[in-house]
Amino acid sequence: MSTDLAFGVPAIAVIFTSTRTTDYDDEYRAVAASMDDMVRRQPGFLSVESVRDPVTRRGVTVSYWVDEASAVAWKQVAEHLEAQRLGRERFYSEYSVVVASVTRSYQSGSA
Amino acid sequence: MSTDLAFGVPAIAVIFTSTRTTDYDDEYRAVAASMDDMVRRQPGFLSVESVRDPVTRRGVTVSYWVDEASAVAWKQVAEHLEAQRLGRERFYSEYSVVVASVTRSYQSGSA
Repeated sequence: MSTDLAFGVPAIAVIFTSTRTTDYDDEYRAVAASMDDMVRRQPGFLSVESVRDPVTRRGVTVSYWVDEASAVAWKQVAEHLEAQRLGRERFYSEYSVVVASVTRSYQSGSA
Repeated sequence: MSTDLAFGVPAIAVIFTSTRTTDYDDEYRAVAASMDDMVRRQPGFLSVESVRDPVTRRGVTVSYWVDEASAVAWKQVAEHLEAQRLGRERFYSEYSVVVASVTRSYQSGSA
């Protein structure tokens, strides 16, 4: 395995960490699925990874963008603003967002 | 909620994404617990968040460091090198590592 730039550099990573308020929630599932679908169609979107542990209710979603402007634009999309409001008010007991500039990356199977 | 720098800037984020080969494995659990304990005692360590979905076996671990040198030093710790070898050979069917420089962060409950 050696260094390989999966996204190219520069790229922007947005790390969203959250704790869900409840185990199960149809509205949450619908909103999360809608956002997952929508984010992939945003200009400048590169990829997204989202994982949640159902026991701890803790989740991490990392989205990658070609630049900061693309990441900021997604934050301002109307449907996403509404999802963020629901997140603050009902879905998450707490959350954090970290924005970072990718400097290097490598992966299994790289030549 | 407003902007708040959880870690201060600059900080380095190391995003480790992986897929486990099997559902359950005592050796993996022991190694993962040991690494989680050990990483917290490294010079320059700030915090770590690790989540895995037991159904998809997909996991994301994000560790935060005061600087790049601290993150690189942890990668070279002997026990961690051995854990990385086990990861490549047995624990993970695939994985990626992204290193990024934190530019801003905010969290719920910020003033």
